[in-house]
Amino acid sequence: MASSYVKPKEKTLQNLRDIANRLRIHSIRATCASNSGHPTSCCSAAEIMSVLFFHTMHYRPNEPGHPSNDRFVLSKGHAAPILYAAWAEVGFIKEPELLNLRKIDSDLEGHPTPRLPFVDVATGSLGQGLGAACGMAYTGKYFDKTSYRIYCLLGDGEFSEGSVWEALQFGSHYQLDNLVAIIDVNRLGQSEAAPLGHDTDVYHKRCEAFGWNTYVVDGHDMEELCQALWQASQQKGKPTMIVAKTFKGRGIPDVENADNWHGKPIPKDKVESVISTIQSQIQTSDVCTIQPPAQDVPPVNTVDIKMPSLPTYNIGEKVATRKAYGLALVKLGNTNKHVVVLDGDTKNSTFAELFKQAHPERYIECYIAEQNMVSVAVGCAARNRTIAFASTFAAFFTRAFDHIRMAAISQSNIKLCGSHSGVSIGEDGPSQMALEDLAMFRTIPGCTVFYPSDAVSTEYAVSLAANTKGICFIRTSRPETPILYSQEEKFEIGHAKVVRINDADRVVVIGAGVTLHEALSAADELAKQGIYIRVIDPFTIKPLDADTIISNARATGGHIITVEDHYKEGGIGEAVAAAVSGEPGILVQSLAVSGVPRSGKPAELLDLFGISAKHIITAVKSTFSN
Amino acid sequence: MASSYVKPKEKTLQNLRDIANRLRIHSIRATCASNSGHPTSCCSAAEIMSVLFFHTMHYRPNEPGHPSNDRFVLSKGHAAPILYAAWAEVGFIKEPELLNLRKIDSDLEGHPTPRLPFVDVATGSLGQGLGAACGMAYTGKYFDKTSYRIYCLLGDGEFSEGSVWEALQFGSHYQLDNLVAIIDVNRLGQSEAAPLGHDTDVYHKRCEAFGWNTYVVDGHDMEELCQALWQASQQKGKPTMIVAKTFKGRGIPDVENADNWHGKPIPKDKVESVISTIQSQIQTSDVCTIQPPAQDVPPVNTVDIKMPSLPTYNIGEKVATRKAYGLALVKLGNTNKHVVVLDGDTKNSTFAELFKQAHPERYIECYIAEQNMVSVAVGCAARNRTIAFASTFAAFFTRAFDHIRMAAISQSNIKLCGSHSGVSIGEDGPSQMALEDLAMFRTIPGCTVFYPSDAVSTEYAVSLAANTKGICFIRTSRPETPILYSQEEKFEIGHAKVVRINDADRVVVIGAGVTLHEALSAADELAKQGIYIRVIDPFTIKPLDADTIISNARATGGHIITVEDHYKEGGIGEAVAAAVSGEPGILVQSLAVSGVPRSGKPAELLDLFGISAKHIITAVKSTFSN
Repeated sequence: MASSYVKPKEKTLQNLRDIANRLRIHSIRATCASNSGHPTSCCSAAEIMSVLFFHTMHYRPNEPGHPSNDRFVLSKGHAAPILYAAWAEVGFIKEPELLNLRKIDSDLEGHPTPRLPFVDVATGSLGQGLGAACGMAYTGKYFDKTSYRIYCLLGDGEFSEGSVWEALQFGSHYQLDNLVAIIDVNRLGQSEAAPLGHDTDVYHKRCEAFGWNTYVVDGHDMEELCQALWQASQQKGKPTMIVAKTFKGRGIPDVENADNWHGKPIPKDKVESVISTIQSQIQTSDVCTIQPPAQDVPPVNTVDIKMPSLPTYNIGEKVATRKAYGLALVKLGNTNKHVVVLDGDTKNSTFAELFKQAHPERYIECYIAEQNMVSVAVGCAARNRTIAFASTFAAFFTRAFDHIRMAAISQSNIKLCGSHSGVSIGEDGPSQMALEDLAMFRTIPGCTVFYPSDAVSTEYAVSLAANTKGICFIRTSRPETPILYSQEEKFEIGHAKVVRINDADRVVVIGAGVTLHEALSAADELAKQGIYIRVIDPFTIKPLDADTIISNARATGGHIITVEDHYKEGGIGEAVAAAVSGEPGILVQSLAVSGVPRSGKPAELLDLFGISAKHIITAVKSTFSN
Repeated sequence: MASSYVKPKEKTLQNLRDIANRLRIHSIRATCASNSGHPTSCCSAAEIMSVLFFHTMHYRPNEPGHPSNDRFVLSKGHAAPILYAAWAEVGFIKEPELLNLRKIDSDLEGHPTPRLPFVDVATGSLGQGLGAACGMAYTGKYFDKTSYRIYCLLGDGEFSEGSVWEALQFGSHYQLDNLVAIIDVNRLGQSEAAPLGHDTDVYHKRCEAFGWNTYVVDGHDMEELCQALWQASQQKGKPTMIVAKTFKGRGIPDVENADNWHGKPIPKDKVESVISTIQSQIQTSDVCTIQPPAQDVPPVNTVDIKMPSLPTYNIGEKVATRKAYGLALVKLGNTNKHVVVLDGDTKNSTFAELFKQAHPERYIECYIAEQNMVSVAVGCAARNRTIAFASTFAAFFTRAFDHIRMAAISQSNIKLCGSHSGVSIGEDGPSQMALEDLAMFRTIPGCTVFYPSDAVSTEYAVSLAANTKGICFIRTSRPETPILYSQEEKFEIGHAKVVRINDADRVVVIGAGVTLHEALSAADELAKQGIYIRVIDPFTIKPLDADTIISNARATGGHIITVEDHYKEGGIGEAVAAAVSGEPGILVQSLAVSGVPRSGKPAELLDLFGISAKHIITAVKSTFSN
């Protein structure tokens, strides 16, 4: 039976208004102390933050990361001071601590990061919070199946980011009625007014057209906010968007709704007068009761995930590593029910579809929206509710570089798999060829970069990724390649395999994926000519097994040739060159793709771009002739 | 006076229908010959392509790249075969050439690239065509001020990409009434149905809410297409979106509207029967008259751009390189009226606002939509109509990595400037710090990466970028740093500067931006202790001046220390390590940021992350102690 809306008592409303003003004062004082930050972006959101934290949300004030709590995502991360202020009002942060904002020894950073226990995802690159909130809401509704709800506060400026619209599409498509987003339409961006200004009607139309239950409210009117949030709680089958018309710098005389106040603290000589003006409107000092979570979520196990069995491939059998990825996911999904898989309408190419077939209830189709896919994965993996794997063509993860970068700042444990790496995809041409993905993922702090060269090592990569903290990337290839390793071979992160060794080896060749197989062909051909080369499979490109590389280089005369289906910059060659750059007497030559490639057959392209067995043979021979 | 719609003669309509079917046949034959490709994605668009190329667009059939022509962008790049088929029907491509589709020695690649003279921008990574079309339309309306019009064909699958919505927002905001987009709503994506299926009503609502004049038509009905395109031509103040309901594989028995036919050629044993079915519907073989451009565009000069005067800074004066960027743009804009500048609501931080103040009619505010900003810049620079500079925080260019990657495939000459690089931005924290941008831009084929260390070299970087083909990236810094170079100092791409030299130098230190100044401080301090170091400013990180680095390393004992406000991976250290990796006796030590940084004061952060003068001094001394 549907309940009906009961207007909060005036005392409650006044209490919430007073908290809003206290949040303003905290935000102004903190940014004044740090002499940087965004007090005006805080002040527009004061009533919204007050009502959410002290009226709407259910959570344990002393356990902000408790899995049963409602979640809050501050997508407009530059309003961080008001988030910190709210947690000070809650009592979780001591008030004087707020004045350490942005100091090097404080976790109250300029934009929120999970160094703070009440932050699930880092924000500050705009337009990313709603996607993560969608992932949390999807997890709450379909995986945890419990009553916690997700609230996301966005700025109006960030509505220009396409990733917001990807998230809107996702939220309505999956009927995330446990998700409420609020736009703080304060009209002003960083350098000028946002494109829609205060035209809340257009926001309304757009959000409604994107399938959201949408309300327009005065964002400084506590009762309108209470009512809209109550209505949101009654909504079934749709997420809710509250378009809140506000004023930037609300409550600050001469600053409210004025240009050129983005990211500027109130001048020190004016701050006390501003604060006393705001203070004078505070009528109560009551403490609000915070509602505990309605229902506890079940425990989950997302650590120490074991594959149910050894790989079942036979040496020499030909299997594409992309297919091995899909097969490994199925096994992993059999063994742990918290493994979930996402893909961006490429599942029949990445082989994520095998997981969908085996575990349809744990597959999330994200359609062609890679940014949102990464953010949703981050949301799914937040508070360790799931082990989330997401895949697309490796080239298309470049679409989500900013989101992956932010995922690292979020301390997320998402696992990403990029298929169709390099020119070896063939005819589709350069737009589909990943040639910069190793460089990209290598820059991600704490990221483990797997580049398996056969199906056995791919299966180990998937299993290791599931058990490894931080972001993991698995690079798979389109062509079928022979199995190199026995079922019992053990793989570890940062441990390379020496796959061809002979006392007479005179050079080390390092390849991965298709180029490891080219290196082995070259070794076979050279051996016929009485020339022996040592071939190394690095398995992980980051961390790179420098010890194995250096000791083998020393054992074979000091020459290393790297060969990779990737651009030279930031790839295997540079990683190896950097790893040996402090070692006297070791030289590195890099064979890699240069220039924009083109369509053609895989073998033709490996040859044209200088990374086939033939080129390896030439490089090996030229090593001696020097 | 508004004209009124005149229905085309039935003969014309039938002629257009017949061309559509010939385009189908070409597409089927070509993909059959290549044994890969997307004939079904072509067939849904056959009537649309026919009406555009043989009824609507004005262009010179033998000069497809003529600046006065109407432009066509195939955003759904996987339908390349029908684009090639259209140009075969036009007569620009010889029909038998179509059968060389996707061959390594043909420019008829799997997805369109500007290796073909009728392609302005490469497509194939979905959701990028409309942004480029917006840039062309903006250029036509506001810079060229002539009558050429822009047509863009999109797939329904790519409407899940946020960048499409960024472009929709841009198109209506700037009232691009010379722009017509058509969605080929064929319902089926790669691996399953697109999220909205055939619900053209939702497409209609969304596009209308985004401010576009929108029509829904039967995309296989030639007359409906003619009428909607005529209406679009009459529309003032708004771009037009035509939502065309179509069927994937239209015209192919048993394949039309069926699942699992994405990216699959018609089996060889069925192709003749399919073609004869389609052939049987062709009633005419008339050649359509193609309308020439209505008006010629004025010539533009976008080469050999000279600064009007030398830099006017004085050595030792403190100026942030980001500010020098803005000042240089103003000078460049004074000297050439085809210089245009874009920014994503960060113009008061990047200093692009100085250009806006000086040349408001050539500044494009792109709001917080970096992907679209890059695509719009590509569109502005297409056919060399403008020299387009676009700026935001360097960190936020990661948002547009896929678009930058595609810009390189598009052979675009856009110039990008990223400010706020590294931890030296201070208090805002890691979300705003670019620490992977050098790695990213270094992977871009043909990209020139400038990293100026003072205002004089920044001004030269801007001037050189304007005159350099390919993508250029200029990395600027937030802090003010002293001028190092005299006004007369000459800068060249790929030429480093030795900024501190002494016969007694015992190590080479390479820094750039803030770290070059740290290196100079270290040199000063070390000199007091009787230890001399050679300091090099690389100026461009790509191409890197390997000769200068190697010769100076040889002259000083073979030790190089690199120091950079960037992650180790893919940055200056790895670039240098790779450059010297074939040189015996040269060792490289890299000082760079590792891990996720945090908020703090710039100097504190340089110190905490090991890239301050103090750490350089320690590294220099440890070089000797080894």
